[in-house]
Amino acid sequence: MITSLTNPQVKQAVKLRDGKKRREDGLFLIDGRREIQRAIESGIEVSKIFFYPGGCNKEFTEKMFSSGAEMVDVTEPVLEKIAYGSRDEGAVAIAKRPVRTLDSLKLSKCPIIGVAEGVEKPGNVGALLRSADGAGLDALILADCKTDLYNPNAVRASLGTVFSVPVVETTSQAAVDWLTKKGIVIFAAIVDGAIEYSTADYRQPCAIVVGSEADGLTAAWRGTNVQPIYLPMNGIADSLNVSVTAGILFYHALAERRKSVKR
Amino acid sequence: MITSLTNPQVKQAVKLRDGKKRREDGLFLIDGRREIQRAIESGIEVSKIFFYPGGCNKEFTEKMFSSGAEMVDVTEPVLEKIAYGSRDEGAVAIAKRPVRTLDSLKLSKCPIIGVAEGVEKPGNVGALLRSADGAGLDALILADCKTDLYNPNAVRASLGTVFSVPVVETTSQAAVDWLTKKGIVIFAAIVDGAIEYSTADYRQPCAIVVGSEADGLTAAWRGTNVQPIYLPMNGIADSLNVSVTAGILFYHALAERRKSVKR
Repeated sequence: MITSLTNPQVKQAVKLRDGKKRREDGLFLIDGRREIQRAIESGIEVSKIFFYPGGCNKEFTEKMFSSGAEMVDVTEPVLEKIAYGSRDEGAVAIAKRPVRTLDSLKLSKCPIIGVAEGVEKPGNVGALLRSADGAGLDALILADCKTDLYNPNAVRASLGTVFSVPVVETTSQAAVDWLTKKGIVIFAAIVDGAIEYSTADYRQPCAIVVGSEADGLTAAWRGTNVQPIYLPMNGIADSLNVSVTAGILFYHALAERRKSVKR
Repeated sequence: MITSLTNPQVKQAVKLRDGKKRREDGLFLIDGRREIQRAIESGIEVSKIFFYPGGCNKEFTEKMFSSGAEMVDVTEPVLEKIAYGSRDEGAVAIAKRPVRTLDSLKLSKCPIIGVAEGVEKPGNVGALLRSADGAGLDALILADCKTDLYNPNAVRASLGTVFSVPVVETTSQAAVDWLTKKGIVIFAAIVDGAIEYSTADYRQPCAIVVGSEADGLTAAWRGTNVQPIYLPMNGIADSLNVSVTAGILFYHALAERRKSVKR
């Protein structure tokens, strides 16, 4: 049992709160029993689990032991030092960052893909992942993302969906090129778009693209192969929160597809 | 010009970051030129504007002078001390908290009202306000809200829509009673709801109710006069972010109403 706050293993875990360190080591932290379980179920390679025996039930620890992860029991203060979210979850894991590329994505016959460009806030990344998970999208592409997908707050806000959603970090240009090459129609949400979103046809293979909190979409999404859609804005503001816009569009596309199946 | 960081007016402003103090004094802070302008345009009583002349253009200061607010010019460090969000906005105002009650709401003939219960995060309050503004709802009711509507982060995340949306803070019970008395159909988003949301009829006077981040809706929203709706969840999680759920439902109701007008 680790009792010292300055134990090298504890120090290594704490360092993973830093984005640069996470990228260098190819690792990230998972806080919380439910999240760790979801990661393992989703095939994420969990290498080490710090747990405070008083905070975990036997069922959890037995399941975790059988996952092959190294189990390290620690005192409550040590766990509190490593944990970053709610402090009563009893376990924090170190896992390997999955490396996913556009070409490794497995798409259905008529895919819907979500794309978010230049997102800055980890909370928005988490909400986007939950919406992509709930809507059952084929994939979520984070283009030129300004925060780390495996930022502890993004992982937490995603409620574990960061592990289940096929998510790729890439550049906007690479995303546009790949979608175009695949023959996937691109619907880009733009404040002054020409097409009211509910009149577009989402029953074809398509991508739904939303822009950053501050600046909307860049010129990469203004090409001739991009259909600019807009949401009606009936108040004083000209846009919605980025994850809200994405959620509205993902679920609208899904509802349109359900309707067309019923007919 | 105020140059001292310990000037009593500066101290009073900084104290308004505290929720209890805001309620006691019936005041709140507005950070940013655009937000201050939106507040004044929406009829919010702005009593004092601290501004750093080097950070504001002449057009802004002249417009503000004519609004009747007391203009207090301060040095850059003083403004930085008062400001809480981005530091380059050049102005922070003190305004009077509007007191709005359910009975003071002016409803259209066929209203749509948003209700969010037990919301904890100021960022979600802000996103909810933007969605209510964008969808053009008749009102947004914050029932048993666990954060202050005039929390600086909620005000900022709302992008000024906190001033334009008719928003009321009340209890869940008072909201249920008022909606029932008015004959407004209540659609409550519940994980195990019986009605798939896109099959409900939003063309009647209705309220769309979403629950808190952690616990969903309380029993107050389980009465016989409440229709429990759900969103299809195709992934591993059982819910979406609260402001995303609300945005999807508000915009879906709106789109259904537009469609029925076109027919």
